[in-house]
Amino acid sequence: MKKAILEHPKKMVIKEAPIPEPNDHEVLIKVAYVGMCGSDIHGFEFGPFIPPKDPNQEIGLGHELAGTVVKVGKDVKKFKVGDQVIVEPGVPDDTCEYCRTGRYNICPDVDFMATQPNYRGALTEYMTHPEEWCYPLPEGMSLMEGALVEPASVGMHAAILGGATLGSHIVIFGGGTIGLMTLQACRSLGATDITVVDVLQKRLDLALKLGAKAVINGKDENAVEVLRSEENFGDHGVDLVFECAGSAFTANQAVQVVARGGKIMMVGTQSKPVPIDFLKINREVTIQTSFRYCNNYPQTIEAIATGKFNVKDMVTNVYPFEDVQKAFSEAIDPEKKANMVKGVIKIAGDE
Amino acid sequence: MKKAILEHPKKMVIKEAPIPEPNDHEVLIKVAYVGMCGSDIHGFEFGPFIPPKDPNQEIGLGHELAGTVVKVGKDVKKFKVGDQVIVEPGVPDDTCEYCRTGRYNICPDVDFMATQPNYRGALTEYMTHPEEWCYPLPEGMSLMEGALVEPASVGMHAAILGGATLGSHIVIFGGGTIGLMTLQACRSLGATDITVVDVLQKRLDLALKLGAKAVINGKDENAVEVLRSEENFGDHGVDLVFECAGSAFTANQAVQVVARGGKIMMVGTQSKPVPIDFLKINREVTIQTSFRYCNNYPQTIEAIATGKFNVKDMVTNVYPFEDVQKAFSEAIDPEKKANMVKGVIKIAGDE
Amino acid sequence: MKKAILEHPKKMVIKEAPIPEPNDHEVLIKVAYVGMCGSDIHGFEFGPFIPPKDPNQEIGLGHELAGTVVKVGKDVKKFKVGDQVIVEPGVPDDTCEYCRTGRYNICPDVDFMATQPNYRGALTEYMTHPEEWCYPLPEGMSLMEGALVEPASVGMHAAILGGATLGSHIVIFGGGTIGLMTLQACRSLGATDITVVDVLQKRLDLALKLGAKAVINGKDENAVEVLRSEENFGDHGVDLVFECAGSAFTANQAVQVVARGGKIMMVGTQSKPVPIDFLKINREVTIQTSFRYCNNYPQTIEAIATGKFNVKDMVTNVYPFEDVQKAFSEAIDPEKKANMVKGVIKIAGDE
Amino acid sequence: MKKAILEHPKKMVIKEAPIPEPNDHEVLIKVAYVGMCGSDIHGFEFGPFIPPKDPNQEIGLGHELAGTVVKVGKDVKKFKVGDQVIVEPGVPDDTCEYCRTGRYNICPDVDFMATQPNYRGALTEYMTHPEEWCYPLPEGMSLMEGALVEPASVGMHAAILGGATLGSHIVIFGGGTIGLMTLQACRSLGATDITVVDVLQKRLDLALKLGAKAVINGKDENAVEVLRSEENFGDHGVDLVFECAGSAFTANQAVQVVARGGKIMMVGTQSKPVPIDFLKINREVTIQTSFRYCNNYPQTIEAIATGKFNVKDMVTNVYPFEDVQKAFSEAIDPEKKANMVKGVIKIAGDE
Repeated sequence: MKKAILEHPKKMVIKEAPIPEPNDHEVLIKVAYVGMCGSDIHGFEFGPFIPPKDPNQEIGLGHELAGTVVKVGKDVKKFKVGDQVIVEPGVPDDTCEYCRTGRYNICPDVDFMATQPNYRGALTEYMTHPEEWCYPLPEGMSLMEGALVEPASVGMHAAILGGATLGSHIVIFGGGTIGLMTLQACRSLGATDITVVDVLQKRLDLALKLGAKAVINGKDENAVEVLRSEENFGDHGVDLVFECAGSAFTANQAVQVVARGGKIMMVGTQSKPVPIDFLKINREVTIQTSFRYCNNYPQTIEAIATGKFNVKDMVTNVYPFEDVQKAFSEAIDPEKKANMVKGVIKIAGDE
Repeated sequence: MKKAILEHPKKMVIKEAPIPEPNDHEVLIKVAYVGMCGSDIHGFEFGPFIPPKDPNQEIGLGHELAGTVVKVGKDVKKFKVGDQVIVEPGVPDDTCEYCRTGRYNICPDVDFMATQPNYRGALTEYMTHPEEWCYPLPEGMSLMEGALVEPASVGMHAAILGGATLGSHIVIFGGGTIGLMTLQACRSLGATDITVVDVLQKRLDLALKLGAKAVINGKDENAVEVLRSEENFGDHGVDLVFECAGSAFTANQAVQVVARGGKIMMVGTQSKPVPIDFLKINREVTIQTSFRYCNNYPQTIEAIATGKFNVKDMVTNVYPFEDVQKAFSEAIDPEKKANMVKGVIKIAGDE
Repeated sequence: MKKAILEHPKKMVIKEAPIPEPNDHEVLIKVAYVGMCGSDIHGFEFGPFIPPKDPNQEIGLGHELAGTVVKVGKDVKKFKVGDQVIVEPGVPDDTCEYCRTGRYNICPDVDFMATQPNYRGALTEYMTHPEEWCYPLPEGMSLMEGALVEPASVGMHAAILGGATLGSHIVIFGGGTIGLMTLQACRSLGATDITVVDVLQKRLDLALKLGAKAVINGKDENAVEVLRSEENFGDHGVDLVFECAGSAFTANQAVQVVARGGKIMMVGTQSKPVPIDFLKINREVTIQTSFRYCNNYPQTIEAIATGKFNVKDMVTNVYPFEDVQKAFSEAIDPEKKANMVKGVIKIAGDE
Repeated sequence: MKKAILEHPKKMVIKEAPIPEPNDHEVLIKVAYVGMCGSDIHGFEFGPFIPPKDPNQEIGLGHELAGTVVKVGKDVKKFKVGDQVIVEPGVPDDTCEYCRTGRYNICPDVDFMATQPNYRGALTEYMTHPEEWCYPLPEGMSLMEGALVEPASVGMHAAILGGATLGSHIVIFGGGTIGLMTLQACRSLGATDITVVDVLQKRLDLALKLGAKAVINGKDENAVEVLRSEENFGDHGVDLVFECAGSAFTANQAVQVVARGGKIMMVGTQSKPVPIDFLKINREVTIQTSFRYCNNYPQTIEAIATGKFNVKDMVTNVYPFEDVQKAFSEAIDPEKKANMVKGVIKIAGDE
């Protein structure tokens, strides 16, 4: 079989490798589609965020995937050959205090794809995975949609942790993949009043298409002023703010617009310390970082399968497997990336 | 009757004034003791934090009090003349969304003593208050202890909001009044593993007396290193951290020691923006500001009355009413304030 | 003006009365539509559930209403003459422990329309109400829909208390007004997997139209067997069950189908003790009674206004005010009531 | 080695058996003490509650134990030979939806000691157990206390699920082992206002010794009348009621005394359906069954180790291993059992 490996930053190569063998609790999956995550793109450009201890460690990329079961380990119960599955890429230890209390996403010993300790990537024709962390693809849902359950679940988890529901008044800073996933997750949970702020009009247009009630282009308008105006949230402020842009500037806008008793979810990665003015938010405001997802696949799959959550229209670029180098190169190209919301690499596709 | 008024920063004067008349739902209280809060001391030194709109507004200080009912309005049901009462100093509007959802402490229209709009202070021989916001002093509890229910409730509210309970592993930065109140609140809620960090040994000794399991003197030791050492919290970190010192330095220490999935309660006032390194706390850490208290008086009173919560031993200075100027002057005197944990002004006392 | 009074069981009369005067915090409302609640119909047939202490007390009926403000008290801030409003019919005391902790629906001193102590009914041309408990009718929503926010909120409150959300697996016993309101509330909160059980096919057809995923006619099938079959919930059982039929039979079916760790919401009124087999539900099952609503009007209004929640299609009968006796008579007529899902009495209508 | 086996109802025999071998993740434990649970006593009298499928299945009893590690599997990390450990007797599957969401106590595939599928009992000189489900015995805590962490955790779990905390007003029906454990758990969580109801004065005396604020002897007084009297809970009722007696009579008393918005925890086993009058509790009362414990060992151990929770004084009878038949015979003897609160069987003891 073939698999793609990060030879060095900015250079993916496709190599021959033996098809792996599933252990007793694993299934062997023929990979259909793999989504390109911001972390994959960052890894392509700069190398792994957490470099491997062993300098000879082979580095794979990709952890958003769906595919078809082609072989099952002897103890596998839920799946049989031919089943189409969606993969949850992190395998926690199942025994630590976090796993035991229902917060497996922060298990310190999780084996998550494309990072330490194993750096195994989804950009491969075949891979094994524990059946526990595979979900059946529901009827009517495509394998490409299945591959996007992972990033959709990031939005779903953040939305749930933030308490988004019918009646929430919500602002999302950042209309990239995670911002738009969060938007749709909030909508799937019943929220109808959601404003998205970004500086790229293309993303804002997509946000409106995907259910935002309003959008603000931060290049043309002062988002804080607009949100704090009488027609919008005024003195009251915004109950629930998602920071999905990963910038200190928008994090501070979040602080300026959040309501007393409100919540700011930090979903985007802040690479540097952010000065937070706690005097402005001293009326019991909560700031919480959100990390991956936890028990969210079933509901995210339900939301997509029932048409509440539209991942299909977020896909702007589909590349064949052999163009994996081109795919990542375009994702870091300043001009081309402006037009890319979500890129997907087709390996086996729907065959 | 006599009442004390802030004539200008650093100058309290005692004036004659008519005894006020309770309205139908109010009681008239003969004030026994008034605790000196950090906000009163700050107001004494610099004037009100939020200056009055009317330059002729009379400025009172004091909002921690207990006293005796000497007259009741015609609709008063819970109290009769002679009852000893503990006063909750904020009167919310009872009708806004925050009041209706059980978060009256963040009611934007609250009328809170010694601040806008009315600046009415407790440093007076008599004052009126709605019966709804008075609580009977339980048998065996002194009026001076009653006056300290207010700051104790600040600690109680923060402890509850933070989720302190049996089994919590807790670090409190700052061993001043609020830090020590928070310590005792956590203990009253069942927690036994509480470490207090401060730079004044006197406070740390008191913390140990009041139930801290361990203390760290930040002048002698690097608190982060000690807390992160193998014998203490190691890689795991601290589940629940209270920042009660109001300094950016300790806020950052909080960020460095908090566990994944943990919580930092911001209880102290941060007068300037604090740089927060969200990369260090990206595994679902929560930072929440805590504000005053909400439905906490009954349980705080129970904790004090049953001997779980010791406010008495926190009182280091008691001043007679006529020494009100001296009391506040000492509270801002660099040398004298180091020995003051909690100051109380005796008005009628226990007579 | 005219108002309808229950002269004695089964006899409504329309009388002349003076138009009431709003006090400082009240608005005077010209009533447009009044929904007929099961409790009104029960009161019509048998007299008030809790009889008045004063035998001369005038008994009104009706508490589901919307109308137009025609006069405002001097302290009214939110409304002006001409505004269309939706009325929340219970006025709690705002000061008891339940009000203060955000559970005003169980305030023991609530003054709720058409019951003790005041028995004031909405079947009147004009009535006064505190502005605090009125909500603006949003654009695009009709006054008749506004009158149905009250029963819709009963469903919304039960659904929220039950924890209905995206991903919930839900069964509702009883497809009458409250069952169908609960169905739509669950859907508005994101749930997609809802089965409704009833014995009247007409109601089940409406349930399907309003978004049920499946229905079971309990006359034709054993609901427990169907729900426990492998194609449905099997050994796992149902996470969330709403008992909206008010019968001991369906309450026991609920016990038989609920999943371990699941929840049964008792929404219907059980007039007699129900034998509950706790051995069958000893794996941490919760049974909770739901009562009216609490802070639910804003989100229910939003759900109706945005088209998520369809109250209009539940209205099967609209009567002019002068036919109020006929309206209630039909509601207790064995044949006619089978065709009535929701009856509404038009007073001023949309004029 | 020797182990005790239930040959048939009312007959325990001690047999020779080979010492078992720990697998890679297990430790081999030399059992010190085993507590006698009500379920063991029931099993002794009538045979297993859920009979084994295989008629030749060997039936052990006992699941409350502590002991000393004498051998470790090769992957064991937390323990070494000589460590004293407390055993949590249920081994859930770690992978089902309940385990993943932090509710492992209701895992349908749990392998729990002394019941199906394996019926392995703690009444044995040596047994193996996964290290994940063993906890180190803290300094200062005896092995006999360690054996009682299991029933103490049942009380702790019920108390936490019920929301017991400082300020709770609590009534416990039933002052047997579980009632007294629940009492102490509530106290360890901060509650001070706890009334225990029983018909045996000996148990009530012990309840007072262990921290009950008041007791009611149901043989001498009508508990409902006493609790509903003005000096006690009056019209308000009781916020939190624990039914630990397992009788329909006390379950109905719970219904009669619970406050609006209150909670009834069903901790005792109700062997027959209980008629529940939902009309009496229609103001949002919750009834919840509590099952075993979940993530409660660490805090229960902390409570015992810090002296908040006294299990030692609950032990009324200690039997040597060779008297196992006598121990169980006395536990079902009508006269002798009235004097037994908690029986313990000493196997290795503290040697």
